[in-house]
Amino acid sequence: MDLLKERILKDGRVIDGRIIKVDNFLNHQLDIDLFNEIGKEFYRRFAAKNITRILTIETSGVAIAAITAQYFHVPVVFAKKQEAGNLSPEVFASEVYSFTKDKYYKIRVDKRFIQPTDRVLIIDDFLAQGNAVCGLIDIVQAARAEVAGVGIVIEKGFQKGREKILKRAPVQIESLAIIKGFQGDKIIFENTD
Amino acid sequence: MDLLKERILKDGRVIDGRIIKVDNFLNHQLDIDLFNEIGKEFYRRFAAKNITRILTIETSGVAIAAITAQYFHVPVVFAKKQEAGNLSPEVFASEVYSFTKDKYYKIRVDKRFIQPTDRVLIIDDFLAQGNAVCGLIDIVQAARAEVAGVGIVIEKGFQKGREKILKRAPVQIESLAIIKGFQGDKIIFENTD
Repeated sequence: MDLLKERILKDGRVIDGRIIKVDNFLNHQLDIDLFNEIGKEFYRRFAAKNITRILTIETSGVAIAAITAQYFHVPVVFAKKQEAGNLSPEVFASEVYSFTKDKYYKIRVDKRFIQPTDRVLIIDDFLAQGNAVCGLIDIVQAARAEVAGVGIVIEKGFQKGREKILKRAPVQIESLAIIKGFQGDKIIFENTD
Repeated sequence: MDLLKERILKDGRVIDGRIIKVDNFLNHQLDIDLFNEIGKEFYRRFAAKNITRILTIETSGVAIAAITAQYFHVPVVFAKKQEAGNLSPEVFASEVYSFTKDKYYKIRVDKRFIQPTDRVLIIDDFLAQGNAVCGLIDIVQAARAEVAGVGIVIEKGFQKGREKILKRAPVQIESLAIIKGFQGDKIIFENTD
């Protein structure tokens, strides 16, 4: 998605030659016009999948999922994070390892909000190690619903997330920008899409 | 806002005669069509205020703020919660007491994302004690920007939030549904709007 890649090149900041910060348009300050273009693009790529529900994880996936849902005309559900304590029996849950924080946290979705008849599109802002998306897949599978697709805004193609997801479920993964790597402060994209 | 009140009566669950759960349309599963009506209504009420930016707090304010921003054509910024650790000097911060969790947490916004020229609309899903909104007002004031309005989806009118906010800043507060109280499991609204 060229508009997105141009924006990443313009506003993304590379830190220590390995971290990319896009907090001025994607995950702290939110450019809602861009989000609408992202939502349209997800719709274009998944329109044939008869999506009935969008699932994401708090916090930074929520706004993208909400804007995207307008094109699919389906409800959004976001998985809640929980660091400690017991889970209610009323929830589907999974455990996710956070690489940046080096710890595990639980994620949960109320059982009322995913039905076995659902065809779920999982949306998130970043794909790196793939742990968050795999946790969301666990939840969809626990609900005996179908993972109908995974839509990612920015994928770090040099990490193992995509591989990990495909081991968990043979699903269509669409990333709107795939970063191949960095050359100093320069961002190199894969030539997909 | 009648559509919202009808939805609260239909889907809201009163627990222990004092807590209201609206997680099947407002803050866990999200009804995006309803969010659009909410966004339009906020626009109707604050259109004259020349809003330049919408500020909210993670997590449950984020989707409402994102959908609402489409009507104002402005960016959204969400304050991030942080339970412990040092804050960067690059942020505006405040401390918020959570009544439900009985603890304080810090909230922060990167200084790049609120400018002194901004006219900020604060959006949140609930107003009860008013602590979260007051924390957001602190941040806007630290940025020397103007709090141009506070838009709330559901206000618990029997708590002190509105009073507390008005002591902090003489601002237009618009709540789309104000709950006066409960009679057993029945929700009683104030007869505003």
